[in-house]
Amino acid sequence: MTVVLESLHRSRDAITPALRTVLDRLDEETRHQAAYHLGWIDADGAPAHGGGKAVRPALALLSAQAVGAPPETALPGAVAVELVHNFSLLHDDLMDGDEERRHRRTVWTLWGPTGAILTGDALLALAQETLLDCGLPTAAAAARLLARATSDLVRGQVQDVAFERRTHVTLEECADMAAGKTGALLSASAAIGAVLAGAPVATVDALALYGSQLGLAFQLIDDVLGIWGDPAVTGKSVHSDLRARKKSLPVTYALNQGGTAGVELASWLSAPGEPDEAELRHAAGLVAAVGGREWATAEAARRMALGEAALRTVDLDAGACDELIALGRFVVDREV
Amino acid sequence: MTVVLESLHRSRDAITPALRTVLDRLDEETRHQAAYHLGWIDADGAPAHGGGKAVRPALALLSAQAVGAPPETALPGAVAVELVHNFSLLHDDLMDGDEERRHRRTVWTLWGPTGAILTGDALLALAQETLLDCGLPTAAAAARLLARATSDLVRGQVQDVAFERRTHVTLEECADMAAGKTGALLSASAAIGAVLAGAPVATVDALALYGSQLGLAFQLIDDVLGIWGDPAVTGKSVHSDLRARKKSLPVTYALNQGGTAGVELASWLSAPGEPDEAELRHAAGLVAAVGGREWATAEAARRMALGEAALRTVDLDAGACDELIALGRFVVDREV
Repeated sequence: MTVVLESLHRSRDAITPALRTVLDRLDEETRHQAAYHLGWIDADGAPAHGGGKAVRPALALLSAQAVGAPPETALPGAVAVELVHNFSLLHDDLMDGDEERRHRRTVWTLWGPTGAILTGDALLALAQETLLDCGLPTAAAAARLLARATSDLVRGQVQDVAFERRTHVTLEECADMAAGKTGALLSASAAIGAVLAGAPVATVDALALYGSQLGLAFQLIDDVLGIWGDPAVTGKSVHSDLRARKKSLPVTYALNQGGTAGVELASWLSAPGEPDEAELRHAAGLVAAVGGREWATAEAARRMALGEAALRTVDLDAGACDELIALGRFVVDREV
Repeated sequence: MTVVLESLHRSRDAITPALRTVLDRLDEETRHQAAYHLGWIDADGAPAHGGGKAVRPALALLSAQAVGAPPETALPGAVAVELVHNFSLLHDDLMDGDEERRHRRTVWTLWGPTGAILTGDALLALAQETLLDCGLPTAAAAARLLARATSDLVRGQVQDVAFERRTHVTLEECADMAAGKTGALLSASAAIGAVLAGAPVATVDALALYGSQLGLAFQLIDDVLGIWGDPAVTGKSVHSDLRARKKSLPVTYALNQGGTAGVELASWLSAPGEPDEAELRHAAGLVAAVGGREWATAEAARRMALGEAALRTVDLDAGACDELIALGRFVVDREV
């Protein structure tokens, strides 16, 4: 775990100067909002030390090393995936009405919907510019991978929003949504360094598969934490996803099991009003009773094993491959 | 004029099947909203026959022909610029709170802010995918041109929003905003076919300059129409831009002339409340009195002359060049 944290810090240190240089292309106002969103400054411009773990850039740098290239080869890709990730967070926070992210006010609450929309749009355009300006002969292939992942990411978000309005969602549809919303960009991140390094298609495909399975495993565990996670660890309120009556993967599994518990859960999810703590505990119990928690945990492990097996089918640098696997496990295996 | 309309219809007919094929990649909901926005269907899905003039695709096709390539070479570029244009309209209508476009309800009023944000995001990602998937060796250069134009377009919109909150804007700042918001994508449209055809840099630059000057000229005349245009022709209410107290180019010119009329205009623009017809007529008179209308009209003509002169500095197919100039004049020279 310490090794993974060190590796994450190392890659964050590696991409931060490049990310700063790229953000310098933005107008002052957009750059300010982007820097705030990234945790670099406070709303009033004072330096801050926050921000996410930058898992996607770390995957990108490792994917170049895994095919024997220096991590610098992946730098434009690492910056680009982080930009696309933050584009999606800016728009999602607005659409979901989330007022806080990592215990800080979200951009739309400070600069209005217009700020969040335009800063997101600017980061998306900048991601493509960064890749296409990098001068590598493989830039177009990397840009294509990223454009496709962005389309899948947006489609996943469209599904997520649509599912909130629907009473029935199949487990397959729910997994497809997670594959788009969480898997697509992690998949591109785990492959983009290898694409920039000009690795063979089979190698790129194996890395992409690893990233997509990692994304699904992450989402499954995130959904388990959204119901049963310790608020002190998750930073969210207890039963937060149930409170929002979210059709997460464990809930969708439980609903599709039918039976009396499934029926009771379905009618509880469609009931109006704010549920109290006792109701939330009872609903969480229903999901667990039909095996939703157990299934999600086992499915996450299965996805991780699939992804790791894919890596072993191709010839990769052993050290970088181990780091990729350790990083993936670190991201997924949080305190459940 | 009839020749230009025929040329516009021809290019719209040429790109529509390609645009439909590309939109088929979207999920059903996003495709439905995009098709509605493009005027192909009603909100309930019944076929409709609307939509814009598709000036940008027409420029893209002509720019390939101008360098001696068949218009098909520019097809992915023509589709991509139209997608980026519609991405920006979807987001702008939401941010500006516009409830109608071309006498139809806007996407956000029918499917909520989330619909407009996600459909816009999807079209932007799809634009890059379309170009990068086209298989031409010049695809990356075209995608790069488009990514840069998108960044400039977003920056222009950021400035436009910022200027609404400011009391003073210089004429240079206002022109810079219009260059981004209107000029950048028209510039990319007028050059992207030549880029896809592999034309020399000097030729591409001349075409891009023509497009950017056309964009500025268009915006100047659009601003004149927003104050003095005939509602029967513009489809907007009389004095619409003044009613919105918009710091358009003629208004900014007038404000920067100072004098008693300029000072009166400034205090009128910052006054609260809904202005009545007499006030609007008086404000329009103030702008005209200090030369705002005359300046904008002359400046538009100067920009067009600059753009057309740029075309004459390079070796272009004479017929396509004539069509480019005729199309530009048609777009700019509307009933003032």
